[in-house]
Amino acid sequence: MAFINDNYLKLKAGYLFPEIARRVRIFTEANPQVAAKIIRCGIGDVTEALPAAVVKAMHLAVDEMGTRVGFHGYGPEQGYEWLREAIAEGDFRSRGIEVSADEIFVSDGSKCDCGNILDILGDQNRIAITDPVYPVYVDTNVMAGHTGEADQTGAYAGLIYLNCTEENGFVASPPEGHADVIYLCFPNNPTGAVATRAQLAEWVAYAQAHQSLILFDAAYEAYISDPDVPHSIYEIPGARECAIEFRSFSKNGGFTGTRCAFIVVPKTLMGSTADGERRALHPLWSRRHTTKFNGVSYIVQRGAEALYSAEGKAEIGVLIEYYMGNARILREAVDSVGLRVFGGVNAPYIWVKTPLGTTSWEMFDRFLNEANVVITPGSGFGSMGEGYFRISAFNSRGNAEAVATRIKGMVW
Amino acid sequence: MAFINDNYLKLKAGYLFPEIARRVRIFTEANPQVAAKIIRCGIGDVTEALPAAVVKAMHLAVDEMGTRVGFHGYGPEQGYEWLREAIAEGDFRSRGIEVSADEIFVSDGSKCDCGNILDILGDQNRIAITDPVYPVYVDTNVMAGHTGEADQTGAYAGLIYLNCTEENGFVASPPEGHADVIYLCFPNNPTGAVATRAQLAEWVAYAQAHQSLILFDAAYEAYISDPDVPHSIYEIPGARECAIEFRSFSKNGGFTGTRCAFIVVPKTLMGSTADGERRALHPLWSRRHTTKFNGVSYIVQRGAEALYSAEGKAEIGVLIEYYMGNARILREAVDSVGLRVFGGVNAPYIWVKTPLGTTSWEMFDRFLNEANVVITPGSGFGSMGEGYFRISAFNSRGNAEAVATRIKGMVW
Repeated sequence: MAFINDNYLKLKAGYLFPEIARRVRIFTEANPQVAAKIIRCGIGDVTEALPAAVVKAMHLAVDEMGTRVGFHGYGPEQGYEWLREAIAEGDFRSRGIEVSADEIFVSDGSKCDCGNILDILGDQNRIAITDPVYPVYVDTNVMAGHTGEADQTGAYAGLIYLNCTEENGFVASPPEGHADVIYLCFPNNPTGAVATRAQLAEWVAYAQAHQSLILFDAAYEAYISDPDVPHSIYEIPGARECAIEFRSFSKNGGFTGTRCAFIVVPKTLMGSTADGERRALHPLWSRRHTTKFNGVSYIVQRGAEALYSAEGKAEIGVLIEYYMGNARILREAVDSVGLRVFGGVNAPYIWVKTPLGTTSWEMFDRFLNEANVVITPGSGFGSMGEGYFRISAFNSRGNAEAVATRIKGMVW
Repeated sequence: MAFINDNYLKLKAGYLFPEIARRVRIFTEANPQVAAKIIRCGIGDVTEALPAAVVKAMHLAVDEMGTRVGFHGYGPEQGYEWLREAIAEGDFRSRGIEVSADEIFVSDGSKCDCGNILDILGDQNRIAITDPVYPVYVDTNVMAGHTGEADQTGAYAGLIYLNCTEENGFVASPPEGHADVIYLCFPNNPTGAVATRAQLAEWVAYAQAHQSLILFDAAYEAYISDPDVPHSIYEIPGARECAIEFRSFSKNGGFTGTRCAFIVVPKTLMGSTADGERRALHPLWSRRHTTKFNGVSYIVQRGAEALYSAEGKAEIGVLIEYYMGNARILREAVDSVGLRVFGGVNAPYIWVKTPLGTTSWEMFDRFLNEANVVITPGSGFGSMGEGYFRISAFNSRGNAEAVATRIKGMVW
């Protein structure tokens, strides 16, 4: 008798985005005349064309693959040396951060990496996550059996929730007690908050004291405009001994549909066996990555490499400026109607407090019905997200301006 | 204190292909004058250009991605509907096999799928694998904690090994005892054996009787030329209730470096909770796939779709015939020097018995030293592979002919 992984049965049925899709569908069926008017500011998906440098590089790569002499079969699972070198130089060494090419593992997405990293970690770890949070961190821990059942607020027994509130600027401090593994994401999805150097240093100090592992999701680092805000956890001394960093080309190069990301596993990073023996994580992840993954498409890796060319960097700059221009327009609109607004300055997400007494889903329904705009209810990211909603700046300028106008036209 | 997954420490250090690479490097350093002469018939990696239909489709897709109106962000994690439909029609319905598009999950590789499928299965399952076997099936079970330690032959405690020998034509029969999950691969890597309809029916009957799950790896189905040999486990009545099938574009369309594959999870397939309650596997895999994966690159999916066009099918036919022409040349050479040869008729792998008293690695070293040819030692696939070696037909015609000549020139 083949047994299933019973932990899957603990998962809450309604993942956030399918529920949003369901409500939009029902609304559209009931109001077909406004279907074309709906503007989606929900899911964090980019909208603008791939940079020309990427397009050019991928055409060249496709042509190579079409000839016997230029053909590439299996590449190194960890990624081609030229891409790993470009990343090490472009994202780290050129900024004075110590990361070597062989500490970089190229993958097909941060979502995959965030889930897969649990493979090399023990089931006895005490896991800390922020609330609100990117749901994938939670769900993958539930699947791996690291939690008990969920309560009526959706919180799973066994997880340590770190509350992110207006009071702490949506940046949680280290807990009083002990956590073995801690998920941090800055610039934050969904709140748009960023952590200062001092705040990250506090986390690194905690991790050192507790021999904890920080899983640092920096998928949105390209949106940081404040020169004092760290782009990488490795800007903090000691982080090479306690942190893995997740990076993605999805939001800087617009690779959400092209698929390329990477993680950094420093060779100086250790974990413990059940017996307390210290072991390096790098060879474990290397074994995992080479055994359960077969590398990213050659064509896509050539596209990613082009993001590090002078042309590519300039084009990323244009994309970031474009989306952050949307963010400014949306922030201003929300602010002008008297709502409290956070984020949207060093991040493409705007986090808004609902009017007193209005739940996140009520706000979602109001936006859908009154403005034909799809936002994301904050409660979908955790119980501390209740009473907030997220607006994504990933959209065309025209749509962002239309959403701003419609927000101003709603009755507040 | 962050704990590691101690199961990783059970893994044998020397994975097959790194050890081959190490020996080739040592040989090359000692014999730089013959380095350029070395011909690799080891790893199962294709060598010929991508089909023109694929190249054309990917150029179009790259161009689309370079425009705002044609841009694609996140796609459905399971794959685009047009690709899933093309697969359901091209690989199944057109052959009279019942598989619907929504039972197909597009992925970036069979290696990933083979490992990831364990996520939705319970740790209490008794796992049966054939010996010799594709090492990924074994290693991913070790990582998941489904085994004890390895003994001196490399066999892991807790796994049920199904011996594939000359006597059973390298097709194992179901075991006497009980297995919950069974890995089968036909056409087989590494032996090149195929299973007849009757043999597969025996396995399906066993799985039905034991409520077992068959993980059926059909990555090489395109190499079947015998019209009586099933291409899919679903050609066997009852298989929709007991089997998941793994398919890949790596070996038919030459996608080893382009990355696209899929699995079929029939909606009629059930597993058991620890309490014995029956649950469908399809929603579990769907949840896994959408939570821990973000879809295959749009560009790559358009390339895969092109394999189902008339032009694409014809080009696959040419590629298969090319590699199978190599297989015939290599088989004939091995046979002519008096070695016993298997496979290479409905599969791109030739499985050869070493001369009496010669181990697989001794044979590897002889080939490398005397013929400057890299083969794969059979013992790398399991203890029952000792005394055999594998020759891959994935090569240029010129190389296949050169290898044949060199084999004939060796002292036997």
